[in-house]
Amino acid sequence: MTKAVYAGTFDPVTFGHLDIIGRALDVFDELVVTTTQNVNKSSMFSHEERLSLLKQTLGDNPGIEITHFSGLLVDYARQVGASVLVRGLRAAADFDYEFEMALMNRELAAEIESVFFVTRPKYMFVSSSLIREVAIKGGDINPFVPPAVRDAIITKLSRRNTGA
Amino acid sequence: MTKAVYAGTFDPVTFGHLDIIGRALDVFDELVVTTTQNVNKSSMFSHEERLSLLKQTLGDNPGIEITHFSGLLVDYARQVGASVLVRGLRAAADFDYEFEMALMNRELAAEIESVFFVTRPKYMFVSSSLIREVAIKGGDINPFVPPAVRDAIITKLSRRNTGA
Amino acid sequence: MTKAVYAGTFDPVTFGHLDIIGRALDVFDELVVTTTQNVNKSSMFSHEERLSLLKQTLGDNPGIEITHFSGLLVDYARQVGASVLVRGLRAAADFDYEFEMALMNRELAAEIESVFFVTRPKYMFVSSSLIREVAIKGGDINPFVPPAVRDAIITKLSRRNTGA
Amino acid sequence: MTKAVYAGTFDPVTFGHLDIIGRALDVFDELVVTTTQNVNKSSMFSHEERLSLLKQTLGDNPGIEITHFSGLLVDYARQVGASVLVRGLRAAADFDYEFEMALMNRELAAEIESVFFVTRPKYMFVSSSLIREVAIKGGDINPFVPPAVRDAIITKLSRRNTGA
Amino acid sequence: MTKAVYAGTFDPVTFGHLDIIGRALDVFDELVVTTTQNVNKSSMFSHEERLSLLKQTLGDNPGIEITHFSGLLVDYARQVGASVLVRGLRAAADFDYEFEMALMNRELAAEIESVFFVTRPKYMFVSSSLIREVAIKGGDINPFVPPAVRDAIITKLSRRNTGA
Amino acid sequence: MTKAVYAGTFDPVTFGHLDIIGRALDVFDELVVTTTQNVNKSSMFSHEERLSLLKQTLGDNPGIEITHFSGLLVDYARQVGASVLVRGLRAAADFDYEFEMALMNRELAAEIESVFFVTRPKYMFVSSSLIREVAIKGGDINPFVPPAVRDAIITKLSRRNTGA
Repeated sequence: MTKAVYAGTFDPVTFGHLDIIGRALDVFDELVVTTTQNVNKSSMFSHEERLSLLKQTLGDNPGIEITHFSGLLVDYARQVGASVLVRGLRAAADFDYEFEMALMNRELAAEIESVFFVTRPKYMFVSSSLIREVAIKGGDINPFVPPAVRDAIITKLSRRNTGA
Repeated sequence: MTKAVYAGTFDPVTFGHLDIIGRALDVFDELVVTTTQNVNKSSMFSHEERLSLLKQTLGDNPGIEITHFSGLLVDYARQVGASVLVRGLRAAADFDYEFEMALMNRELAAEIESVFFVTRPKYMFVSSSLIREVAIKGGDINPFVPPAVRDAIITKLSRRNTGA
Repeated sequence: MTKAVYAGTFDPVTFGHLDIIGRALDVFDELVVTTTQNVNKSSMFSHEERLSLLKQTLGDNPGIEITHFSGLLVDYARQVGASVLVRGLRAAADFDYEFEMALMNRELAAEIESVFFVTRPKYMFVSSSLIREVAIKGGDINPFVPPAVRDAIITKLSRRNTGA
Repeated sequence: MTKAVYAGTFDPVTFGHLDIIGRALDVFDELVVTTTQNVNKSSMFSHEERLSLLKQTLGDNPGIEITHFSGLLVDYARQVGASVLVRGLRAAADFDYEFEMALMNRELAAEIESVFFVTRPKYMFVSSSLIREVAIKGGDINPFVPPAVRDAIITKLSRRNTGA
Repeated sequence: MTKAVYAGTFDPVTFGHLDIIGRALDVFDELVVTTTQNVNKSSMFSHEERLSLLKQTLGDNPGIEITHFSGLLVDYARQVGASVLVRGLRAAADFDYEFEMALMNRELAAEIESVFFVTRPKYMFVSSSLIREVAIKGGDINPFVPPAVRDAIITKLSRRNTGA
Repeated sequence: MTKAVYAGTFDPVTFGHLDIIGRALDVFDELVVTTTQNVNKSSMFSHEERLSLLKQTLGDNPGIEITHFSGLLVDYARQVGASVLVRGLRAAADFDYEFEMALMNRELAAEIESVFFVTRPKYMFVSSSLIREVAIKGGDINPFVPPAVRDAIITKLSRRNTGA
């Protein structure tokens, strides 16, 4: 029984994230998908909204638990009894940052292992920030996010524009 | 007749940009050089000033049109009848970001092609942000920007310092 | 009227190469696809066979000329009246080598421009050498090469195995 | 019950490999460590010797099976009932090659997942080829390989030198 | 007699910085360690605090001078009579930025040379920003910074939390 | 008094190498330039020829000693009393290999430091292997190598062609 944690800002969740989640479920018995606040970025969605979008998207998959956490990721992994951190890699550009985090996390918690999955080529250019930018500029984001996410983005942007 | 678009913040235009513009003009019939607002950065020059510096620098070249745009770049390219997006590459560091944008742009507009030119080695360390930093710290920026740009930077910085 | 040259070993031509050829044809008026001998690698196909596979694959496209060359690529480009060298980029790993070649070629022939196209994600892991390796080990190469190329590889490998 | 395959030339096995094997055993239930012949490189040790060194080094670990294979790795994984390919990453340089292989392997066998582990910093500069080179030039390889491997290398090199 | 300058924000100084300082002292006769304000980042410590932590950490080493500077680094190097700029490299990710700065600095001051040292593997994932993040989230930073720095961070964070 | 070693195959020496040698002489008191045999490559020039070209090119510079060595570079550095290994970096592509070598060399000899210099942009695409390839294909190599080297290459190639 291996339990893994897949953490991210998920602002919003994309088909790229879902691709990694599917792969992780093929390999691990239980997966905790958990949202965190990236302190350096202002988010489009609140953490309640991001959690809600994850739940709408991932549905009632029995192997998946959806949570929010703050603090150190390795502390959170210990708390939920997970021994693996799942990470997605999109291209070489991601790698150096991920490498640094993986080494730091191992130093902080030697018993927790970071494992990396490579994103499917058709999603390797899909990031949450790029999707937000495309949506704001009026582009079609249907190929990159599930319908519930697309609707939430459109609602969010129309409220912004009407000042609601 | 191939029309290409070369978009950037051009804050300010540098000899590196002019190098890419020259190469693009050798290859394509018409080139639209267009300024955009980078939402993540505060700019030194307003878009009117950036347009004015491009016009002073590029003069009356019949193959070049100088514009400002907002929204999606591929939508703008369609609107002006261009089939090519020109991009400059300075080093491997640029590449991953450019790759992501090129793939996203193709997804958004399959008929518009991104083509990349490699910057001349003597300009490969010249970026607008580095030039702004050097100028603010009192360094000599003559080797990196045309005289009109240098003068505009000096004027801008002296106004800042005198509180004008 | 811009004429471009796309050179490679094409040992054998893959869907990745055909992707770049299609993009280049959208942008340039004439394209010379030319095979060269890579002195550092032993090839699976002779240059006559590689030319023949290119011709079978690219058919009677009026914008394409298929040739073989030796010597410096820039000298060959001058000889056929081309002003552009087309290159495909698959990932950051390709970039440094391509950058070096582009800078050297510009030094050797300042009037000839190297332009880069980014390969479609679904072909970004497709290289001739990897396809040869997969075929030799009995894997299915149908998703990566045109039927004529697949048949030629199978024939080549069966002759090897029977000692013919 | 997840079974994983960790394939390599292991010419010879190093502390870097053992680090990855230890991590994989923490995460997966069963691990097949399997040697392959790299057709592009001449090896120092025969495949029997490489297998023997793996067996001496990994001892009687009940979770590990040590084998030799030829052909496609994904076919071998299917044959032994494994659903995961384990790969070690030492630095960004490794990444592009590994990315290409992971994507090709997924294309060849969609049900088999490649997962990557990051090597411990103290072994990130340790490769079999570098160790062979250091040993040949008379350097101390004790920090990089287990004693049985060191002895085997010394024996191999002394036979070479005496023409035995 | 070669005098070198090692500049950074040192917010705060880490074992990674101390590793580079030790290497530079083995190679150069005199070393000026100098703090600068990174205009793009808000710092945890004031420049007086950062200077004080450097002094507490580096003690009374006769070969080291500890200073604060503003303006262009090459101008500062000239002013103190240094001919070398020392830089640490942690991984490929650092390299492109460092390369750009080294080329710009040479353009600005041809007589001043940038030299690079590679950080020891055990510190290659240690950056000031990552340490600040770990400390804020309650992780153990003892392996990454000297005791004086750890105490200063704890004091700083407890003041924040108590609103002092 | 710091003595440094700059090792390479120098097959042949290029303006890129001379650029690094000039920088190293600005920083260190004595420099040993030493040729080694790269076991993986067949060389164009014998080691006597490579030494002779280095001597013709570097002339009677009192700070430079020109030698040939075999075995481990760190052992050679110890033997000649050098505490520094000089390395040139041309681009990110070089970096991963250089990083691996620097870490291995430090492990083998903790008291010897590797320091890196960045090649001038105009030589960053100049490698010995590319120059040999250009010369063999009849290109002009005058911008990349000193006259003595150019003459030696031409003589070498004309002997090959006449079978002498």
